[in-house]
Amino acid sequence: MKIGFVGLGRMGKNIVLNLLEKGIKVCVYNRSPGPVEELAARGAVPAASYHDLVSHLSSPRIIWVMVAAGKPVDQVIFDGLAPHLKMNDLIIEGGNSYFKNSLERYHNLKSRGVGFLDVGSSGGLSGARHGASFTIGGEEAHFKRAEAIFKAAAAPNGYAYVGPAGAGHFVKMVHNGLEYAMLQAIGEGFELLESGPYADLDFAQIAKVWNHGGVIRSWLMELAQEAFSKDPRLARFAGEVGGGETGFWAIKTAWEQGVPFSLIAQAYSLRLLTRRPESYAGKVIAALRNEFGGHPFKENKKKEETHDRN
Amino acid sequence: MKIGFVGLGRMGKNIVLNLLEKGIKVCVYNRSPGPVEELAARGAVPAASYHDLVSHLSSPRIIWVMVAAGKPVDQVIFDGLAPHLKMNDLIIEGGNSYFKNSLERYHNLKSRGVGFLDVGSSGGLSGARHGASFTIGGEEAHFKRAEAIFKAAAAPNGYAYVGPAGAGHFVKMVHNGLEYAMLQAIGEGFELLESGPYADLDFAQIAKVWNHGGVIRSWLMELAQEAFSKDPRLARFAGEVGGGETGFWAIKTAWEQGVPFSLIAQAYSLRLLTRRPESYAGKVIAALRNEFGGHPFKENKKKEETHDRN
Repeated sequence: MKIGFVGLGRMGKNIVLNLLEKGIKVCVYNRSPGPVEELAARGAVPAASYHDLVSHLSSPRIIWVMVAAGKPVDQVIFDGLAPHLKMNDLIIEGGNSYFKNSLERYHNLKSRGVGFLDVGSSGGLSGARHGASFTIGGEEAHFKRAEAIFKAAAAPNGYAYVGPAGAGHFVKMVHNGLEYAMLQAIGEGFELLESGPYADLDFAQIAKVWNHGGVIRSWLMELAQEAFSKDPRLARFAGEVGGGETGFWAIKTAWEQGVPFSLIAQAYSLRLLTRRPESYAGKVIAALRNEFGGHPFKENKKKEETHDRN
Repeated sequence: MKIGFVGLGRMGKNIVLNLLEKGIKVCVYNRSPGPVEELAARGAVPAASYHDLVSHLSSPRIIWVMVAAGKPVDQVIFDGLAPHLKMNDLIIEGGNSYFKNSLERYHNLKSRGVGFLDVGSSGGLSGARHGASFTIGGEEAHFKRAEAIFKAAAAPNGYAYVGPAGAGHFVKMVHNGLEYAMLQAIGEGFELLESGPYADLDFAQIAKVWNHGGVIRSWLMELAQEAFSKDPRLARFAGEVGGGETGFWAIKTAWEQGVPFSLIAQAYSLRLLTRRPESYAGKVIAALRNEFGGHPFKENKKKEETHDRN
């Protein structure tokens, strides 16, 4: 089996390495040539352009696209690949796309006779390298055609066709919302350990015990064990957390459907809070408490900086 | 090695069966005699009273207490066992006790020359039966004396001495708070799958794929896979959730320490909400919206029942 692969970022590169190891031939293209050369040295067929990529593959082709969600996906599929595709070619889109965009892309490609599978990929970099988890949406016949690829790239039992176009990314979006709340739960647990009455707890040891027979054993807790064994109180990290787009989509979708999604929305909101050095709501509350009760307040020592914003 | 064991509920019985299997001799006592007879048939030494239990063991004794948190623990330890104990005997308390109570019990027993270890036990019934996770607080010398027991009852790598008296239950309390938020996260994820735009998703299949290579893979997600494979939409369950005491302690402790604990407190609050058939806050908001904007409201058809409360 031979497929095309576009997008050799951290995830894409690792998936290609895994596919090569499993005996799938992969022709690779990337906007910047560095990763193409790197993977060529490890057995991939290098392509210098979209045209070159497509010409290395015989019809009907299968091409996996693994680029950042949003415009890059449309650019690769519609500007880059589409002009070179033929009837019955099949695109696999494995990024973290919003499922409604995937549904549109499916219909757009269908009108050109090209197939489309939306694939939610989970498992981080190690999963990409050694076997990830894939939820796949689209037409079942297309899934069957590409199944050997998913089987090769997935952890054992780590892939499934879950439903029609968009379903793969929808399920992945829900996964990510759930992940936000799990992360925040773990964060808060260790925050209480860190600020509680027992000063000398060994967090790596506790995570390890929890991971061996405990109800909360999980891959994220294993990562916590790793992180604390390298840095017992995580001194090198600031408390600010990035990311969040898929979580925001999940909340938006839930609220559009009338689903409360209270905890996951709260987890997202708390992540936003980590990015704000000072609580403006806190300023307002301090001012109101001072107005109604004369309550003392902590003074802002950096008034000038506040003015600098204008 | 031979120990005493008091409290043969679901958890206690399973721990005893596991200890017996690992070659530890266990003399068992329980308020109701049924489980004592049951375990005697499986190799335990039955005791008919606290006095009988203690007289089957030679000093210094080790006795594991596994009863419901609160008064039952004090009754067993101070009313039941203490009159029969000698200097250097050691009590292991493996229930879900509040860590401040454990600290008091430690000091009380220390004044009588009796040792005390507070042990947070996690892993559910299957963990109790086949190897649980134990976080142990108290004096390290006492832990060393009892270590072979924990090693026998725990999953591989599933036990650790975590700190001075109370620390074992403190760490378990944090574990449980974290568990509440993880549970709620999983609940909300499937609620969105259930109410989302894709009607025919196979929840057991999705949980399975997430568990094989996914970031959120966890024992709780494995249990979700089990539950959904037995009952695809959980039709036999009402949405009401019991339990909550340890979570409440965790929140109280966090807030006493100035730790926000936002998500875990929210998870606890959402669990309380599941027990209230009607939102009184909702009634108030409906009334106020009607007052200020004449907004229509859903009428209460069961006015009499509301009056019945008085």
